[in-house]
Amino acid sequence: MPLSANNPDRTSWLHVDKNSDFPIQNIPFGVFLTRDDIITIGTRIGDTAIDLGALHQLGYFKGIPLTDDIFLQDTLNDFIADGRKTWRAVRNRIAEIFDAENDTLKNNTKHKKTILFRLDEIEMQLPVQIGDYTDFYSSKEHATNVGSMFRDPDNALLPNWLHIPVAYHSRSSSVIPSGIPIHRPQGQTLPHGSSEPVFGPSKLVDFELEMAFITTDANDLGEPIPIHEAEEYIFGLVLLNDWSARDIQKWEYAPLGPFLAKNFASSISPWIVTLDALEPFRVESPKPIKPQLDYLKYKGKKSYDIQLEVAIQPKGAKETIVSKSNFKYMYWNMVQQLAHHTVNGCPVNSGDMMGSGTISGPTEASYGSMLELTWKGEKPIKMTDGTERKFINDYDTVIMRGHCEKDGTRIGFGEVSTKLLPVFSKK
Amino acid sequence: MPLSANNPDRTSWLHVDKNSDFPIQNIPFGVFLTRDDIITIGTRIGDTAIDLGALHQLGYFKGIPLTDDIFLQDTLNDFIADGRKTWRAVRNRIAEIFDAENDTLKNNTKHKKTILFRLDEIEMQLPVQIGDYTDFYSSKEHATNVGSMFRDPDNALLPNWLHIPVAYHSRSSSVIPSGIPIHRPQGQTLPHGSSEPVFGPSKLVDFELEMAFITTDANDLGEPIPIHEAEEYIFGLVLLNDWSARDIQKWEYAPLGPFLAKNFASSISPWIVTLDALEPFRVESPKPIKPQLDYLKYKGKKSYDIQLEVAIQPKGAKETIVSKSNFKYMYWNMVQQLAHHTVNGCPVNSGDMMGSGTISGPTEASYGSMLELTWKGEKPIKMTDGTERKFINDYDTVIMRGHCEKDGTRIGFGEVSTKLLPVFSKK
Repeated sequence: MPLSANNPDRTSWLHVDKNSDFPIQNIPFGVFLTRDDIITIGTRIGDTAIDLGALHQLGYFKGIPLTDDIFLQDTLNDFIADGRKTWRAVRNRIAEIFDAENDTLKNNTKHKKTILFRLDEIEMQLPVQIGDYTDFYSSKEHATNVGSMFRDPDNALLPNWLHIPVAYHSRSSSVIPSGIPIHRPQGQTLPHGSSEPVFGPSKLVDFELEMAFITTDANDLGEPIPIHEAEEYIFGLVLLNDWSARDIQKWEYAPLGPFLAKNFASSISPWIVTLDALEPFRVESPKPIKPQLDYLKYKGKKSYDIQLEVAIQPKGAKETIVSKSNFKYMYWNMVQQLAHHTVNGCPVNSGDMMGSGTISGPTEASYGSMLELTWKGEKPIKMTDGTERKFINDYDTVIMRGHCEKDGTRIGFGEVSTKLLPVFSKK
Repeated sequence: MPLSANNPDRTSWLHVDKNSDFPIQNIPFGVFLTRDDIITIGTRIGDTAIDLGALHQLGYFKGIPLTDDIFLQDTLNDFIADGRKTWRAVRNRIAEIFDAENDTLKNNTKHKKTILFRLDEIEMQLPVQIGDYTDFYSSKEHATNVGSMFRDPDNALLPNWLHIPVAYHSRSSSVIPSGIPIHRPQGQTLPHGSSEPVFGPSKLVDFELEMAFITTDANDLGEPIPIHEAEEYIFGLVLLNDWSARDIQKWEYAPLGPFLAKNFASSISPWIVTLDALEPFRVESPKPIKPQLDYLKYKGKKSYDIQLEVAIQPKGAKETIVSKSNFKYMYWNMVQQLAHHTVNGCPVNSGDMMGSGTISGPTEASYGSMLELTWKGEKPIKMTDGTERKFINDYDTVIMRGHCEKDGTRIGFGEVSTKLLPVFSKK
């Protein structure tokens, strides 16, 4: 099936800024609250939000097998469960409707009033109800940095790391969309040199620069997904800030892994960019250093060249870019992750989220966490407002952005932006 | 509010066997498919299943503020979200309707036809949609046994264990009700003495004897639940068999914890027994060995005397009881677990499930897993059919049961029974 929605020559009758993440070749999916307080599924072209519920009610998706209320929902789960063929048909149709050469909707002022919104008229919601959130640990540079700092620089990678796309289960209930502020978590930490833990606010709150993919219904209990089929079950990607409290993590994590150090918040960008939209930006993954077992062997380009950056914006000051990385650095790619996750028969459902793990690149400037960027706080970062950061301060806003660019086409994710407030107190 | 449903002197006009887990003092909640293929919420007295949807439609809950469709749902999540006051009112009313001295329904043959089912006419479903499944590690004996086997017998407990109710996130999508068979998982393991992993069926499939509690909506993002309020948010308990693949676990678990070794299946008993029904069986928890931080300090009896047993039934043979344990052995109790889980502001929602971790008692016969019972397979268990078991064989059914008994009243959980089939193969 040709991805006509990806046609690089197409322009839209909706205005799109030159550097927009959302040209008519993107067509991401999200959920928003409209000015009339109605929840709907929508997409975005330039700075215009498009109500797909209204578009469907007005008959613009005629001929595509969709239930009447598929877009009049507060999550994308059911639409995603409809499968790739349907996603493609809908995305292609949206491209046609908003094509500069198509004036059906363009000339229908009444319809446009119901369907189109300025961004300041809507409020983005969490795009999916996440059944399970899995977080991988797939950047070799990140795993090496962490292993060097906390274990042994000469044997930084554990023996299983080059064989297994290591992962752990994380918490769905604390995944929030961009824009929702969070509180500094409290918890147990072990003071240096002491054997008795103390209770109090975390002193080492950190971001983790990640991306996450959202799946569709993939398999029944017991049934593995072969790696050559895995891509069929990936709907799209978002930016993910997997907030971490390093001091809580250090004391709690043995032997069952991080828990309270992670589950206080994970923020995602609200527009899911489809795997189809990212098609032109495929690149090779890093070459395997050790042979990989058959169920993890794949053919073709399964990584994507997605430029990422992280900024910290102190209260009332300008932001400072603290990291520039790229999704393509991941040692284990998404099809390997999904094949591994299901090789034991673990069921994957529509709306499940799988994080990449912190994406660190080969240079210091491309590290994906303050832990690595400041090397445990030993090398503070200078901010443009003259202050310094070892970790994240109260009232700092952490902003992550990501986009692909090739041959004049730019497809992006917008941003995930989250302000850290002080410890929660009951009013 | 008096728990009139717990009145030990009450009998029912429905027949209840002398040793039934489900006298009129129990009144658990579950979800079942009826002979007419309708999903409904129900309860059980003796061996009679009671359709609460039908009971409500026929007006038996008049005066209790319930939405019309609260029981006509395929999960208990909304009912649980209604909160403790409503659960109590409903449970008390059910006790009245089925009281031996009340003949309103008893004498209404037409109503009884719609409301009552024999157990062989229904099919029990998963009682809740589990948003997040957390598994604790709260039995000191279990943690000590595992630490002795895999680390150091002289320092079996890690330094954090006596300070933290250690836990990790597990997988919701593979939680299944009693009766659903599972497949032996495949995965990576590291052969003894080798540095290269191999792929194949797990050779060390194990059960873990656990209980789990189901929560109601408890807190918003950022807001901790104080320990003295925690009990208000616990709806009830089920038996949990947290299936484990020990060989996969050993190779994969460092540093982020168990993943594929656990997420292929977790089985639960289908009737949720309310915390209210367990009220008469409260007991003290074990005395703390080390001082606990203030947020983990509680008053009163927060453990429950629940007798547990595990049986293995080989194909076509009689079962053998392999373990007898008790929920009261848990070092960390449920209010400590919930206070800890939320102290960093992690949100807990209606339908979340929190497992106790393997419940091992002080004697060898009370260990809660084959790993411990056979000490890594060094001491196989003799079965009544003459065979031996180190771990679980294909076609074995593992059955867990639990009940409380005091002053002539017995409140039980029924059972969770799961057959292990060979590795999945595509037909």
